[in-house]
Amino acid sequence: MTQFINKKENIVTEAVDGLISTSGGTLARLDGYPYIRVVVRNDWDKSKVALISGGGSGHEPAHAGLVGQGMLTAAVCGDVFASPSVDAVLAAILAVTGPAGCLLIIKNYTGDRLNFGLAAGRAIEMGLKVEMVIVDDDIALPDLPKPRGIAGTVLVHKITGAKADAGAPLSEVKQTAERVIAGVKSIGMSLDTCTVPGSPKENRIEEGKAELGLGIHGEPGFEKLDYIDAKHAIKAVIDKLEPLMDDKPHVVLLNNLGGVSVLEMSILANDLVNSSIANKLKLIVGPTSIMTAIDMRGFSVSICPITAEDEELLDKACAPTAWPGSKTITPVAVVELPKGLTPKEFTPSMDEDTATLIIQCCETMIDSEVVLNALDAKSGDGDTGSTLAGAGRSIIDALDRMPLADLPKLCSAIGQELSQVMGGSSGVLLAIFFTAVGDAMAKGLSMTDGLKEGLQRMQDIGGAEVGDRTMVDALKPALDEMNNGIAAAAAAARAGADHTATIVKTKSGRSSYVNEEQLKGNIDPGAEAVARLFEKLSSL
Amino acid sequence: MTQFINKKENIVTEAVDGLISTSGGTLARLDGYPYIRVVVRNDWDKSKVALISGGGSGHEPAHAGLVGQGMLTAAVCGDVFASPSVDAVLAAILAVTGPAGCLLIIKNYTGDRLNFGLAAGRAIEMGLKVEMVIVDDDIALPDLPKPRGIAGTVLVHKITGAKADAGAPLSEVKQTAERVIAGVKSIGMSLDTCTVPGSPKENRIEEGKAELGLGIHGEPGFEKLDYIDAKHAIKAVIDKLEPLMDDKPHVVLLNNLGGVSVLEMSILANDLVNSSIANKLKLIVGPTSIMTAIDMRGFSVSICPITAEDEELLDKACAPTAWPGSKTITPVAVVELPKGLTPKEFTPSMDEDTATLIIQCCETMIDSEVVLNALDAKSGDGDTGSTLAGAGRSIIDALDRMPLADLPKLCSAIGQELSQVMGGSSGVLLAIFFTAVGDAMAKGLSMTDGLKEGLQRMQDIGGAEVGDRTMVDALKPALDEMNNGIAAAAAAARAGADHTATIVKTKSGRSSYVNEEQLKGNIDPGAEAVARLFEKLSSL
Repeated sequence: MTQFINKKENIVTEAVDGLISTSGGTLARLDGYPYIRVVVRNDWDKSKVALISGGGSGHEPAHAGLVGQGMLTAAVCGDVFASPSVDAVLAAILAVTGPAGCLLIIKNYTGDRLNFGLAAGRAIEMGLKVEMVIVDDDIALPDLPKPRGIAGTVLVHKITGAKADAGAPLSEVKQTAERVIAGVKSIGMSLDTCTVPGSPKENRIEEGKAELGLGIHGEPGFEKLDYIDAKHAIKAVIDKLEPLMDDKPHVVLLNNLGGVSVLEMSILANDLVNSSIANKLKLIVGPTSIMTAIDMRGFSVSICPITAEDEELLDKACAPTAWPGSKTITPVAVVELPKGLTPKEFTPSMDEDTATLIIQCCETMIDSEVVLNALDAKSGDGDTGSTLAGAGRSIIDALDRMPLADLPKLCSAIGQELSQVMGGSSGVLLAIFFTAVGDAMAKGLSMTDGLKEGLQRMQDIGGAEVGDRTMVDALKPALDEMNNGIAAAAAAARAGADHTATIVKTKSGRSSYVNEEQLKGNIDPGAEAVARLFEKLSSL
Repeated sequence: MTQFINKKENIVTEAVDGLISTSGGTLARLDGYPYIRVVVRNDWDKSKVALISGGGSGHEPAHAGLVGQGMLTAAVCGDVFASPSVDAVLAAILAVTGPAGCLLIIKNYTGDRLNFGLAAGRAIEMGLKVEMVIVDDDIALPDLPKPRGIAGTVLVHKITGAKADAGAPLSEVKQTAERVIAGVKSIGMSLDTCTVPGSPKENRIEEGKAELGLGIHGEPGFEKLDYIDAKHAIKAVIDKLEPLMDDKPHVVLLNNLGGVSVLEMSILANDLVNSSIANKLKLIVGPTSIMTAIDMRGFSVSICPITAEDEELLDKACAPTAWPGSKTITPVAVVELPKGLTPKEFTPSMDEDTATLIIQCCETMIDSEVVLNALDAKSGDGDTGSTLAGAGRSIIDALDRMPLADLPKLCSAIGQELSQVMGGSSGVLLAIFFTAVGDAMAKGLSMTDGLKEGLQRMQDIGGAEVGDRTMVDALKPALDEMNNGIAAAAAAARAGADHTATIVKTKSGRSSYVNEEQLKGNIDPGAEAVARLFEKLSSL
């Protein structure tokens, strides 16, 4: 898969340089390229205990993005998904360790244990105070003697980092780290694998499936599940975590594994804070991308019981902007709607024929959703069908509140309904249209003249002329033919709509952004919707 | 495509609730669900000018995630990629506007202009002070009379938000916004389209192509380019922006459109700060996901000339954690490598036969890269092939520094070379192996006995036994057969490697995380590498 990289062998050095030059001068690196890639605080005076972490790259912002006052002192960056060398780790230790000593925080992988462990041994031989802790928060396999370290590691960084920054001695800093490690538990879920630069992507997870308990290097999950929805995804994760939680208040980290949209992460957050463990969750970190597996479309949840001191340490300001802060989870605060929005009241009345007609028009829109979305995707954002179908559904739902026996009022009521329920420019333009039709008919104009008035008002505000590839291209010719009967109007609407497929240059509107190739041969979705409505009316 | 959502019609309300409940109590929403989705500051006293933005959803964290002290006062959230209704905008205005008035900051789309514009009109009729500014930063089409608003809008929010928070009157706040809008220019590039929830994904951009100048709603880009690499991607964007920049200092926003990994964004940042406009860039915001197109695998660059006051306003602390801060762009600070890392020096010497043998072994590893990566992807992280191929290339490069005529020293030198250049657990284990072989041969042991010593030392540190699905499964039987000749050793290595495909339960190592289905039938990549090496040696 194409990615935004240059030479594969320079991925890590270029990413590290990019991070450092956009850090506002707070970071530096050791002069050991290409093999030694160590990011250090540029404002470090060795007066306190140094914290060093690292491991394979591909988990950004971890670990280099977590270097800064209040978190890590240095990060050792291996190749993508490969542990850094002993020399690289040793270089980091020698560069930042003063009389207060240093603590290595690593994740439980053989490579990291070997390289960090051997480097620590060499540094100790050289007379330095070095301790090491190993994070093993992954609960994917509860019986495994040596669980992996995953996103929970970041909570260790933050709590321990704040402790070290407060001047605690190495023994206390290590104790704090060990306490957090003993408490933190994580599990991940993903809808897809990640893309390892330069390797063909493994399409292991089929559409409609999800893996539970997978690693942060593309390691397969231990269970493959049918994916249902976000709520069930959170439930599957919680079902693993809940039995391991006591009744203490917990912090929860909701981590994006890299490829989940911010929109989806907020939905997952909503499901998480409303899940069965909600009453045990006091603080949340995220949703955020903090321990990623490159671009994996998945997430992980880490939980950890917290003491009052942990809360303070989590809350303490720190330099790395990748740390999003820890927030108290609260119920959704709801503020009363302001006055001034009260809609006009219409007295409902019944007219079977009108109701049937409206339902058929609405159903035409509902049935056209996919087709109109597809047309819109050629020249716009692909939502015309959904917007119109949504409007159709809302009007059907609202029919029993509608003044069906009073046409002018009905038009006004439809206009008001659309202004309330429909977003998008087509929504407000249709609201303007129907409101103007109602106003005109209330003044005694015929239906046809009322519709023409509506069109005029819509054009005045929206600015579209015939030829601009909009619904006007179908609606105007149709209304011009109305006096010759609905069949003539429908034919004119269809001709107008079809003609839009030949319009490739427009003065305004969304189509003006799009190149001619994209437009040629594709009917404008608004015009198509109008043609379909008139064709339906003509068929009744 | 599967996404982490629940019911399509609840996407926005659930995402808004997720945002609010994880905001630490700083946000609230109006009681207008399902159609009115307005996020407001929960600590707002109407004492200053209110800033309201919004538009279609799908751009998270914009705009709801930018509500908070120092940025927006309220955000009006439409459906995905659809403008909110007039009523929703009006509700927001009425909810937050006090005597100081309010400023609407919208992006230049017909729907937003209509809905926000009509709502502003109604609020003014009701006696409120309301002004509106329209951001049109997209330069994809330089000749377009009404350019779109895209990511540059966030710079308007921040600068104007800090101005309003400082107590400036509405006229000044609007003036500031207009000044920024006049200066800010943006353009986007993407490798793929975005996934609109509930719609089939349009596969418009073929593998190997990129679109330049595309919108944030899946609108096609104006140009389709052959994608080369990150540097050329940045260059294509800069080539559009540079002619529009004056010599003033600029702020640049590097925005992730949603689906680019943090690793890749850092590489793009590195290319950006080293591009031809580098000398004009003073501050950077990001790289960050702040105005997304759901999950689009693209980025945008926004630039804006800044005054000294703008710098202060950008730098001012604000509540929304989605704002990553503005940082001074600096050269990469490089710190000298600490002493204590000096490697052992070996006196180079030549031996043609040994050199040829080593080159052939290394080339076997280089040729096996893809196969070994693919095997590793079944049980691990897919990097064994790359790690070994990289080691092979490094050793070939280092041959002229090697003591080729002195076998014990050569083994030590290879061990040292591998400890410097190779990450991963296989890297350090091979370093341990060769160093031990060199030590043993220096003590007078035969090559075969030396190799056995190396294996023993590697097993002592790494902990792997025969049967654990590691390279030991091929290496141990091969060394046991060495006295019967290289062909027998190669056959034993092959048999041992092939046998790993039947091992589905292991006590330790990476395979212990993986379920049996994934392991069955797949040879361990480390064992396969050993078998290939011995087969090569046997064929010479």
